[in-house]
Amino acid sequence: MIEILDIIGVFVFAISGVLAAINKKLDLFGVFIIAFVTALGGGTLRDVLIGRTPVGWMQDLNYVYLIIAGYFIAIFFRNYLNKLRLSLFLFDTIGLGVFTLIGIEKGLEYGLHPVICIALGTITATFGGLIRDILCNEIPLLLRKGTIYATICIIGGVLFFILRKFNLQDSINELVTSLFIIAFRLAAVKYKMSLPVLTIKS
Amino acid sequence: MIEILDIIGVFVFAISGVLAAINKKLDLFGVFIIAFVTALGGGTLRDVLIGRTPVGWMQDLNYVYLIIAGYFIAIFFRNYLNKLRLSLFLFDTIGLGVFTLIGIEKGLEYGLHPVICIALGTITATFGGLIRDILCNEIPLLLRKGTIYATICIIGGVLFFILRKFNLQDSINELVTSLFIIAFRLAAVKYKMSLPVLTIKS
Amino acid sequence: MIEILDIIGVFVFAISGVLAAINKKLDLFGVFIIAFVTALGGGTLRDVLIGRTPVGWMQDLNYVYLIIAGYFIAIFFRNYLNKLRLSLFLFDTIGLGVFTLIGIEKGLEYGLHPVICIALGTITATFGGLIRDILCNEIPLLLRKGTIYATICIIGGVLFFILRKFNLQDSINELVTSLFIIAFRLAAVKYKMSLPVLTIKS
Repeated sequence: MIEILDIIGVFVFAISGVLAAINKKLDLFGVFIIAFVTALGGGTLRDVLIGRTPVGWMQDLNYVYLIIAGYFIAIFFRNYLNKLRLSLFLFDTIGLGVFTLIGIEKGLEYGLHPVICIALGTITATFGGLIRDILCNEIPLLLRKGTIYATICIIGGVLFFILRKFNLQDSINELVTSLFIIAFRLAAVKYKMSLPVLTIKS
Repeated sequence: MIEILDIIGVFVFAISGVLAAINKKLDLFGVFIIAFVTALGGGTLRDVLIGRTPVGWMQDLNYVYLIIAGYFIAIFFRNYLNKLRLSLFLFDTIGLGVFTLIGIEKGLEYGLHPVICIALGTITATFGGLIRDILCNEIPLLLRKGTIYATICIIGGVLFFILRKFNLQDSINELVTSLFIIAFRLAAVKYKMSLPVLTIKS
Repeated sequence: MIEILDIIGVFVFAISGVLAAINKKLDLFGVFIIAFVTALGGGTLRDVLIGRTPVGWMQDLNYVYLIIAGYFIAIFFRNYLNKLRLSLFLFDTIGLGVFTLIGIEKGLEYGLHPVICIALGTITATFGGLIRDILCNEIPLLLRKGTIYATICIIGGVLFFILRKFNLQDSINELVTSLFIIAFRLAAVKYKMSLPVLTIKS
């Protein structure tokens, strides 16, 4: 189940990367790099930080093929896809939920503390977009005021470890947490939830 | 001794990250990431480059808790802290001296050449700020004209290895080098020392 | 043979980094960092991704000395070098060909799939410039419309693995592929070949 969702997540992140890069007027190579980074940048950073090298996509080429497929599909159907923003947003949200869980699992595999696992989940799900924004020379959307995004991964991660205390089967726990993250993100967008921006009085 | 200074360094770098991020109008998640990166980005890059993975803060959660504490303290007392710029500058300078030594030590542990150890010390002490500036979409302060900063770490590192030739006890050597870096930095700011910017005649 | 070309490549990339950094009005430390990153950033990223740590230049100091030499030469002769743009461009092109092959070889050493080896060759040859542009706060030249560059490394890499099927001796194969990349790049500049930039109809 999670494998299928992972495939959907990578595929959709690649497509959203293509559309973002075309809007930045990058050339065809630049568009590919942005698609790749958006889809696999978070997982790659996670692997580098925990020492899981050669990083994941170097050992499982299916990820690379998936991005190449997403790249060509997105390029050929770009005018059409642009009108499917709502569907893309839904898949992107699924990716958010699934990638968070995958990051948490990698942390558990490496015997890391829950706090670190939650950080790894959040990095996996959200830092691809952050690297994409750095490459496009923008202050990362992730760090600016907007509907909450990374914070939902953190809250979802906390829920995962709370449920785990109750000896829930891991696969059920993963499903519940993913659905929680997805539902929370949909609600956040619908109700325009955002974190405050502070000011300093001088 | 160095452990206590390390704690002070991480704590103060986190606070200065919070203040910088608030000035960039990031949201509460963005502020946390900038605090984290400012405090631990340099050490994290060092660990990745030498293959010390999972990187340091993943194996010693005290660093994470320290940053979380610094984050909340800086947020609650942000108006007050902003007036304490001088004290913060002093602590930041202590961090510079201590982080350089910690980086050098990690290099020695891995049996690396003094030149590389000095590079690692400089990366540990100064590249957190460089990554922070990249995330905030600015040309890193570190690379631009300003009172000398990273160069002091390099000179301090050279001093460390010269003193080492004289069979000084490592702990005394570390203390002397740290104090040298701190004093040099204070003098650099007082006397506005800076490196030249070159021009090309065409 | 390839060792000599590697030396030329690192040296010339360092010089081109110095000239670029002076134009961005960085100070002497900033200029050094940009020279370093332009010359070794691609190989460093490659080593981190495949887990070859401590990264290459930490284990072979000749690279560091080479960059220090290139740094001082470029600074002292900067007015003169600026008029040698054509010669520098030729050496830079040699670097492109050689670095691609070095990256491919590292991938083969680690037993990675040809597709990944080609990616590693491209990263080695071109991502130093990409990191340089990020540090200088520009959208990387590599991703924008311009005469094709990284794409040539990819095509060269494909050629390498096709020739390999014919049981060519590796050293001859390397020579042929490097020359192909160099000739292709020269032709690309002469005939102003570039990849298209797409648009989206809304």
